[in-house]
Amino acid sequence: MDIGGTKTAAALVDRSGEILARAAAPTPGREGAAAILATAAGLVRDLSADAQGVTVRALGIGSAGVIDPLAGRVVGSTDVLAGWTGTPIVDRLATLTGLPASVINDVHAHALGEAAYGAAQGFSTVLVVGVGTGVGGAFVEDGRVRPGAHSAAGHVGHLSSVYAGSLPCSCGRVGHLEAIASGPGLHAEYQRRSGEHVADFRAVVALAAGGDAHALDVVELGGAAVGTVVGGLVNVLDPHAVVIGGGVAGAGDRWWDALRRAVRRDVMPSLADTPILISTLGGDAPLLGAAALAWQGDGLTSPATIPDPEVIS
Amino acid sequence: MDIGGTKTAAALVDRSGEILARAAAPTPGREGAAAILATAAGLVRDLSADAQGVTVRALGIGSAGVIDPLAGRVVGSTDVLAGWTGTPIVDRLATLTGLPASVINDVHAHALGEAAYGAAQGFSTVLVVGVGTGVGGAFVEDGRVRPGAHSAAGHVGHLSSVYAGSLPCSCGRVGHLEAIASGPGLHAEYQRRSGEHVADFRAVVALAAGGDAHALDVVELGGAAVGTVVGGLVNVLDPHAVVIGGGVAGAGDRWWDALRRAVRRDVMPSLADTPILISTLGGDAPLLGAAALAWQGDGLTSPATIPDPEVIS
Repeated sequence: MDIGGTKTAAALVDRSGEILARAAAPTPGREGAAAILATAAGLVRDLSADAQGVTVRALGIGSAGVIDPLAGRVVGSTDVLAGWTGTPIVDRLATLTGLPASVINDVHAHALGEAAYGAAQGFSTVLVVGVGTGVGGAFVEDGRVRPGAHSAAGHVGHLSSVYAGSLPCSCGRVGHLEAIASGPGLHAEYQRRSGEHVADFRAVVALAAGGDAHALDVVELGGAAVGTVVGGLVNVLDPHAVVIGGGVAGAGDRWWDALRRAVRRDVMPSLADTPILISTLGGDAPLLGAAALAWQGDGLTSPATIPDPEVIS
Repeated sequence: MDIGGTKTAAALVDRSGEILARAAAPTPGREGAAAILATAAGLVRDLSADAQGVTVRALGIGSAGVIDPLAGRVVGSTDVLAGWTGTPIVDRLATLTGLPASVINDVHAHALGEAAYGAAQGFSTVLVVGVGTGVGGAFVEDGRVRPGAHSAAGHVGHLSSVYAGSLPCSCGRVGHLEAIASGPGLHAEYQRRSGEHVADFRAVVALAAGGDAHALDVVELGGAAVGTVVGGLVNVLDPHAVVIGGGVAGAGDRWWDALRRAVRRDVMPSLADTPILISTLGGDAPLLGAAALAWQGDGLTSPATIPDPEVIS
């Protein structure tokens, strides 16, 4: 289950990561937690009813918001999901579906998906970086996402970047990687440099493909900014592999070439063989990460909550 | 046991981290691995012989060089310890002393000491940063140092810094934190700014205490550079606490004030309460970290090697 700000997606996933069936519905984000949970539980019921010869064993959930995986609870959320903060999501969905349930943040689920079933399958420690509307990530160790003390680990976009100057960041600080290297960051940088208004970063990529000099510079700047931080984080974390994905990572070879050059420039010589991999799961990564969580059987670091039989109606 | 480039220190340490007895000898670094190991084993023998009513249970070792804690082996070393690379340090010292042994890198041991018995005792995940001749560190999780894929995790000094420009770094790259914020980095920066030759960073700190404007600026620059990277790493790692130590951290309030301001400027608002602590163990940290490793009973992530009885002569 992947509970996002606009869409809730669910799938039956077997132990090998194959998706057997899918269902999705708009997330009723403005209607409050009970409506969001009812929509999610409805998808589980629909999938279970349609499943031929399949035993549904457990429910893994990736959810938008700050999620405490040990407590199975939403610790923080934006207004996109009204009333979501404080929701005991594991207890409620375990009760509504009758399944053992576990939950992590959706960015963490994305990373877990890539580590368990995607580009980094088989590597024991993996740094996953997603570059899109924001810049996020997670560190996965032996199939577990490290959640952090405040369930906030992985904010790779909020390291200071030599490319960001004093640009304001979404987090309220200045000069962070996300301020320059996210899709909106690069879009704004193109407009500043060219003096032209364009629709979005996708338009900048199209202009680069057509040879526009400012667009080419901005695409390379984005790759270099991410690569510098990735190279530095390889030095600090020494992961077995790095996986990079997200919408901006679809900007093409020029972005990737700049990124790889920057990594080579910053990574210590002894770590230069660290694989830098392209995300392979695309939009299914959070769903597959949630499935990996469910298949672990015990959630992130705690036993999956199994509902009291009496509570199941 | 703390095997350094110039000195090998050993101590009897009880489970609470109290040092019961000490011994030390110069490390015979130019004489090769056998001599280094014989010196180390001699210290263990001396301490054991002197111990009244104490049972010596295990040997924990922090060693200079790149150490693979799982294999108990030196993976890489500088010429300061001739022939050290490749030494099966755990097997050899277990055989020489008759004790179960385990080993980690000395910087990692320093961090483990602070987490187990020092400033960060009781915090479950801790980022430790040491600022001295170099800038290093480690991430400690539930009393274990994460060694990294190449046993090289924790190179906090090799993240790019907005304060480092294109200064050359000891690792062969440019623009890293260590290039500006280490003792030698700040010493060189003072000389560039003032045009004066002084002995070392200690002399810069003395000049700052006397009101020298360039020295004051450089001390603040050093604190700010470390604080910016620490703030960013708090965003990425979300540790329960950060411990900062090392010779440069003894530069006084001005360095610390600049560091704390920079952390506040860069850390995400939701993580602003992350404790930033001053190292309390000083030079004993690696020794106490090695002791913590020994008391864990099973080394870093593998069982401590218990020598075959026949092999002990």
